[in-house]
Amino acid sequence: MTKANNTQSGEFELIRWIQQEVGSCDPLLCAIGDDCAIDQIPPDKQLLTSNDLLIEGVHFNRAWTSMYDLGRKSVAVNLSDIAAMGGIPRALYLGLGRSKNLKDDDLKDFIRGFIQEAKQHDVILAGGDTCGSPGPLIVSVTVQGQVPAGQAVARHGARCGDAVYVSGTLGDSALALQLLQAGQMPPSPLALRFHTPSARIDVGRYLRENGMASAMLDVSDGLLADLNHLLVASGVGAEVALSELPLSEPFRKALDLNPALIDLALAGGEDYELLLTSSRHDLDQVAIPAPGVVKIGTITAEDGIIIRKNNGDTYQCWRQGFDHFAAN
Amino acid sequence: MTKANNTQSGEFELIRWIQQEVGSCDPLLCAIGDDCAIDQIPPDKQLLTSNDLLIEGVHFNRAWTSMYDLGRKSVAVNLSDIAAMGGIPRALYLGLGRSKNLKDDDLKDFIRGFIQEAKQHDVILAGGDTCGSPGPLIVSVTVQGQVPAGQAVARHGARCGDAVYVSGTLGDSALALQLLQAGQMPPSPLALRFHTPSARIDVGRYLRENGMASAMLDVSDGLLADLNHLLVASGVGAEVALSELPLSEPFRKALDLNPALIDLALAGGEDYELLLTSSRHDLDQVAIPAPGVVKIGTITAEDGIIIRKNNGDTYQCWRQGFDHFAAN
Repeated sequence: MTKANNTQSGEFELIRWIQQEVGSCDPLLCAIGDDCAIDQIPPDKQLLTSNDLLIEGVHFNRAWTSMYDLGRKSVAVNLSDIAAMGGIPRALYLGLGRSKNLKDDDLKDFIRGFIQEAKQHDVILAGGDTCGSPGPLIVSVTVQGQVPAGQAVARHGARCGDAVYVSGTLGDSALALQLLQAGQMPPSPLALRFHTPSARIDVGRYLRENGMASAMLDVSDGLLADLNHLLVASGVGAEVALSELPLSEPFRKALDLNPALIDLALAGGEDYELLLTSSRHDLDQVAIPAPGVVKIGTITAEDGIIIRKNNGDTYQCWRQGFDHFAAN
Repeated sequence: MTKANNTQSGEFELIRWIQQEVGSCDPLLCAIGDDCAIDQIPPDKQLLTSNDLLIEGVHFNRAWTSMYDLGRKSVAVNLSDIAAMGGIPRALYLGLGRSKNLKDDDLKDFIRGFIQEAKQHDVILAGGDTCGSPGPLIVSVTVQGQVPAGQAVARHGARCGDAVYVSGTLGDSALALQLLQAGQMPPSPLALRFHTPSARIDVGRYLRENGMASAMLDVSDGLLADLNHLLVASGVGAEVALSELPLSEPFRKALDLNPALIDLALAGGEDYELLLTSSRHDLDQVAIPAPGVVKIGTITAEDGIIIRKNNGDTYQCWRQGFDHFAAN
């Protein structure tokens, strides 16, 4: 045990600063500063909980991402799990393992981004734990949300004949990462999707409130990997139309030059869009909150995923789903 | 991204194995395998949440601790935060950053210990996140519990004249660590307190149910540091009787040889006992669940902590409270 050096505040000093930045913890009853946060869940609501671990060198690279954006992204990727069940997020808990080279200003930028993204969705930073890390910067986030009792949209409800939809566009984040890894600056719209993705809370909530989704999850590991999770849980298969994948303008431009990039839309990861199935086949005509959803395929009785090209041939994606254990 | 090597299973394979080990997730409605766990909190109960980050080289050393014991301890230190408010723990969420050298068998031993400790308290491993860590092994735990609405025991309720109590014995864990750091094997009772501490759930619950505690927290950073947290939150001070500190037999033996070791009982850390204040001064005569509580001092109007020796002199502890940011 040694004293903290000059560029790093002590643990309790930081916690006091965070308390000030968070401000009122209303509607929670008690938050930062005691052993536990206390909350009251209305009797007609159910509690949703999810957690994620983000490790420097695995999930983020500080050379590419500002600490403020990293704070925002740490929140967004967690809120995305609440969106995936049609829930309303409410409270966040942050575990922070501070690397030796992380200055106070960087840490505060991270917290500011974290709180900013949380406040955009009326979510409270309600508690946490801080310590020093002898290795990489470590960010552990737990999110709690609520959903009307019995209405959470699980991933096991897809039925044969359902349509498959996805929100927003696919592959933007993975393409931005590929450019960064090649030492290039991604165009701004792609970079934004990589650095500060948005959790699709409004879309998920609308679909749940209107009983439109038979199964839903968020696309974090890549479309094919996450679709496979949904299919296995539901005991069905799917056929996806390659030409129907929703792609952004900058992604299409890159694709024109290199058609193999389509695999980033199929299996790139970190899209944080919603993937859902529905007995209704007209959802792309319904006024769902932005960015809306697009039909990309149909649920089939036979296990597995068939990707169909316009000429009727099947397409084979060379990329594998993302395995977080194999990422170091 | 490279493929996992032969001694490490993939992420999804591990999650399936954990699901089998956990078994039924009753009384939770839905746990591992979807985006969020779903739970229903009865209308007369409030939700308690706390989280902790444990990092190899900061919070544990694999040369000293078996992975099974580390799994148990990871649970116990979190449950201790629920005990500190008089709550009943219910669900755990595990974020696991797997270091490169961690074999499948070690990982499974950790999970077995984790689940074993959880089951002892009827707590469910309800969700989590797994990934590879390029550095140390990382364990992030979030715990949820319940408490009858309005009955959680906070740390800000101590009043002048209240008695100060602590459960169990102090300093055992810190003495065990000091021996391990010196290359010695601690006697078994001390080693157990260090490797597999017990959360004082029953004690905390009893005190809360009987309205006996005006303020309470758990002793994780050391008696003086945690007492100071309670005093600052309550706006009071305290006088502690040095001769009243509850000490185990092996601790007393070591103390006879080296009187300076008393500072480990005052500021050693990792006791995971309950520290509380009460308007009643007879709690050490009440049949509180094991290990019971012992009166060690009194709340005073003046800020700060005075440690009083038997001869009336004050005692100055040389150890500082534990600052997790300074621990690397």
